[in-house]
Amino acid sequence: MEQITVKKIGSFHIGGRKIQLSGLPAYAATVAQGAPPRIVDPNGDFWTGQMYVQYTLLTEPKSPYPVCLWHGGGLSGACWETKPDGGDGWQMYFLRAGYDVYISDSVERGRAAWSRYPDVYTTEPIFRPYAHAWESFRIGPRYDADDERREAYADAQFPVEAFDRLMMQSVPRWASNDAITQAAYDEYLKRVGPSIIIAHSQGGAFAERAALRAPSMVKAIVLLEPSGMPSPDTVDVSRLQNIPHLFIWGDHLGDYPIWKTYYHHIMKYRKALEENKVPVTWIELPERGIRGNSHMLFNDRNSDEIAALVHQWITVHTD
Amino acid sequence: MEQITVKKIGSFHIGGRKIQLSGLPAYAATVAQGAPPRIVDPNGDFWTGQMYVQYTLLTEPKSPYPVCLWHGGGLSGACWETKPDGGDGWQMYFLRAGYDVYISDSVERGRAAWSRYPDVYTTEPIFRPYAHAWESFRIGPRYDADDERREAYADAQFPVEAFDRLMMQSVPRWASNDAITQAAYDEYLKRVGPSIIIAHSQGGAFAERAALRAPSMVKAIVLLEPSGMPSPDTVDVSRLQNIPHLFIWGDHLGDYPIWKTYYHHIMKYRKALEENKVPVTWIELPERGIRGNSHMLFNDRNSDEIAALVHQWITVHTD
Repeated sequence: MEQITVKKIGSFHIGGRKIQLSGLPAYAATVAQGAPPRIVDPNGDFWTGQMYVQYTLLTEPKSPYPVCLWHGGGLSGACWETKPDGGDGWQMYFLRAGYDVYISDSVERGRAAWSRYPDVYTTEPIFRPYAHAWESFRIGPRYDADDERREAYADAQFPVEAFDRLMMQSVPRWASNDAITQAAYDEYLKRVGPSIIIAHSQGGAFAERAALRAPSMVKAIVLLEPSGMPSPDTVDVSRLQNIPHLFIWGDHLGDYPIWKTYYHHIMKYRKALEENKVPVTWIELPERGIRGNSHMLFNDRNSDEIAALVHQWITVHTD
Repeated sequence: MEQITVKKIGSFHIGGRKIQLSGLPAYAATVAQGAPPRIVDPNGDFWTGQMYVQYTLLTEPKSPYPVCLWHGGGLSGACWETKPDGGDGWQMYFLRAGYDVYISDSVERGRAAWSRYPDVYTTEPIFRPYAHAWESFRIGPRYDADDERREAYADAQFPVEAFDRLMMQSVPRWASNDAITQAAYDEYLKRVGPSIIIAHSQGGAFAERAALRAPSMVKAIVLLEPSGMPSPDTVDVSRLQNIPHLFIWGDHLGDYPIWKTYYHHIMKYRKALEENKVPVTWIELPERGIRGNSHMLFNDRNSDEIAALVHQWITVHTD
């Protein structure tokens, strides 16, 4: 495979604020194995609300703008790296295509770390069970704890034998942190400067709001099966007239009420964009004869083919 | 700065097992902002006990063995990347020096994800407050919530003005997961093959036990202020005769009872190594006129100077 010449690999944490916890009871805990319990005082100063951003900068990028990969719910930035089946993911694809690449872990996920609940976060974390991922990521119509009995789509592009490896990437999520997450994404974008954002699922709404707040920082936006968008009645989408939008959808959406709901909602948003002269490209992969893609289309067997579509679209739609 | 030519950047999760949770009560939760609460069923299949390993492979590494960077307690692999003050960390140092570099997030930290408690993990997570880090990392003798009133060492090598950025990297930890963490490290080492391990603080004991279990997989081991080691009475350190050991200690250890205890314990282990003909290099930086290093010596201003010591030592002690 093609090598890349790298100027720097690095990372930063951004966003959030310092808080002080007090009045929480101290408790005895065994902190080191084999040692007697010691008193742990959970009070004091902490940072909360930060996110984590990792970058790989090429010596001679071909694109003047970096690609920023924003993950979806219940995942971390690791989803853009090596695929569950061991193949190269979109991080390597876009580096080899000549882009600087930024990968982030959203607030509360992965290397961003997370904060105590209910003292800082107001709700409990949610852990995604296998069955939920199997069905809502559209690997197949029916999950079963017995590998032999679970049902995958006959045309599934997701490497079903690597499903455990997808679940190993799964991280807990909270439902109460959207505002602080958005604030961290806004700061991230401000720091990195004009970028091409590729956002998956839950990441789509954060990307779109970030673009609405700082349109000059976004050169193009690629939305991979976004699960939500702002209501067009509450935002001024005409601010996005200079930001080409690419939506990409996989297969089997019609089999799931939740996906029909999401799709319908995003279609309304698309119409609002078009009415406001925002350039929109809308790709439903099955219409192009590309069948069987799951919600994790950048993890699917044909991920390079879809990345090539995105790269080609970026080339045409950015200067 | 010197560029590097990279064959591949990638990652994998390794270790752990699939578990099934049942009998937990379902509860109503607001999962998407603005949507009505829905019933969340926390039961089902999950993966637990995995760790995360990220690698950067050079096209033409100068070293036949990769460097594996194992972080300490309450941190993730991010600690080896860009330093809190924005300077290049040890990941870039060792890549530029010609090593393939692996960076991991230990079980329960960062991109490794974590599991429910008390249903899977048996204890509560522990969050490190600012004061604890300031004092136990030996930034200075006294922390105060008021920046103006905290006291740093006059000769501190840690970039005190970047202390917030260190705390943004802080992740929760559990005290009850040592066995599953060790198992995951063992699997990681088996997968990567013969390596040079550089381990910090809590990571030191995991590295040493991994070496004891698979001595042929470890070409050299660098222990940066290890906070623990196996008791030499319970393990056969003669298995390590072909593994050169380098211990490195920073400054101001004598000011802290906890560090005096750790140091004393490690010194006993060093003697056992030497009695069993394990090659040991023991560096106390102040004895070489290098003053003011904190526990986070690879984050300190003079981190390159210490990395150069390590690189030089590796060159001499591996074939």
